Amino acid sequence: MGHHATHQQQTSLHDLLRCQGGDVNVERDYDPDGTPGYPGEGRKDAEEYTLAVSEELSDLQERLYASGLTDAEHALSVLVVLQGLDTAGKGGVIRHALGTMDPQGIHVHAFKAPTQEEKQHDFLWRVERELPRPGQIAIFDRSHYEDVLIQRVEQMAAPEEIERRYDAINQFEAATAARGTRIIKCFLHVSRAEQKSRLMARLENKEKFYKFNPDDVDTAQRWDQYMEAYSLALTRCNTPVAPWYVIPSDHKWYRNWAVATLLTEELRSLSLTWPEPDFDLAAQKARVQAL
Amino acid sequence: MGHHATHQQQTSLHDLLRCQGGDVNVERDYDPDGTPGYPGEGRKDAEEYTLAVSEELSDLQERLYASGLTDAEHALSVLVVLQGLDTAGKGGVIRHALGTMDPQGIHVHAFKAPTQEEKQHDFLWRVERELPRPGQIAIFDRSHYEDVLIQRVEQMAAPEEIERRYDAINQFEAATAARGTRIIKCFLHVSRAEQKSRLMARLENKEKFYKFNPDDVDTAQRWDQYMEAYSLALTRCNTPVAPWYVIPSDHKWYRNWAVATLLTEELRSLSLTWPEPDFDLAAQKARVQAL
Repeated sequence: MGHHATHQQQTSLHDLLRCQGGDVNVERDYDPDGTPGYPGEGRKDAEEYTLAVSEELSDLQERLYASGLTDAEHALSVLVVLQGLDTAGKGGVIRHALGTMDPQGIHVHAFKAPTQEEKQHDFLWRVERELPRPGQIAIFDRSHYEDVLIQRVEQMAAPEEIERRYDAINQFEAATAARGTRIIKCFLHVSRAEQKSRLMARLENKEKFYKFNPDDVDTAQRWDQYMEAYSLALTRCNTPVAPWYVIPSDHKWYRNWAVATLLTEELRSLSLTWPEPDFDLAAQKARVQAL
Repeated sequence: MGHHATHQQQTSLHDLLRCQGGDVNVERDYDPDGTPGYPGEGRKDAEEYTLAVSEELSDLQERLYASGLTDAEHALSVLVVLQGLDTAGKGGVIRHALGTMDPQGIHVHAFKAPTQEEKQHDFLWRVERELPRPGQIAIFDRSHYEDVLIQRVEQMAAPEEIERRYDAINQFEAATAARGTRIIKCFLHVSRAEQKSRLMARLENKEKFYKFNPDDVDTAQRWDQYMEAYSLALTRCNTPVAPWYVIPSDHKWYRNWAVATLLTEELRSLSLTWPEPDFDLAAQKARVQAL
């Protein structure tokens, strides 16, 4: 019974949001409107809960950063991959959930359509270059998954090439993990109705016009094909070292809290301690005193 | 009288902190303990004032970012150069004064000792690569000024080469400004006593050990030489398109407020408006409605 109670307490958001594997069908299997694991009552106390987790996150991130500065050879790093359809909130998560950490230890990279130079290389070439350095947290706004999402739906590469990429991604992520990078892949899951409402909101507020791109409507019109492509990516690239998490994202407040909490749990699991001094403390104090 | 009153109101922090030119002697000419232009009473209301300016800063930064997304050809950008001796607070400014902006539009780069590859190029090669893209704000934690600061004091380059660099920097900055980048160079000015106290604090708290490097004491021992090198850089590279600002930095709360305010004033001067839609609003609304 004690064991059971302990287990209950330890149920983590990782466990709750972890993609379960098998043949995933994101629309059938996951509710974009849910709030699993949220400890409060809803929107009204979300700011408070998110602030609390942000404070722990900032503290842990500084420890990770410190480990990178003092012992780069052994320091770990973290990669957060954010994927989701337009309006799912990749930018919002970066701003409100992850943007509170110290910019010094964070590397945010938004993957756009590949440049001419990037197209001349394997699709993972440009991704490798943006991986976190020791002690860093890299945040990918879109990622190599676009190479099996938009590229699949829009037929931007031959079917055999798309096929090849799933295993290539798994190998790439396994190699990255083996070098000491913890990988958290978040699929920000919004419903069709919520996406429509957010797209419309961008057309109704002059401060949001810049976020609207007519191409986004073309993409939205291929909803089913994108859901199928996401389901495939979650089915084929969900590995123990690089798991997918499905983040219900119809509520922005839940989405932000959830991603911050997932990252906090990950950092907590690293048992990060403050680095010991690699110099003689007393001798250095004497030198500073003599300044 | 009306004119005078208006002028009084418009006295900006830019005017107050702008390096006055002529033969600068930073220790003689500038008080690291001052709080020029601060509207409040001191430390106790600094959080409130800094929060207020952060909110305006975030709003303006989003407009700048929006302009880069919608009209990259004409969008401006901003470069903030942070220089100062160890403990002056470059990291603190990034975290507390600038870190509140949306990471998506911000590019933070810390310049370390040049790598082997970087050494094979002109000293400005690695700097050029980190300049802000249209709509971006780049924040340099150290910069090309190290090439006339540490490199001068530690004699890491021939005297003629160091000499050459001042004009090279002025030309580089003028070319950068001409391409639409506003440049704000901040010298974070701490006193010798305050530096000593901050170095000691790093040796008295296990959460700060990682920030201490014995080399910093060597640097601190060459205080006069560094002050001379800074004075020279401020004398020779203080141009209308790339001015230096001297930020009194003995009070962290003032320093943070001041840098956030300088950047806010700069963005305000750009008269940034939200971009007009470059699509037919009604037609797009109809398309979204039909989703």
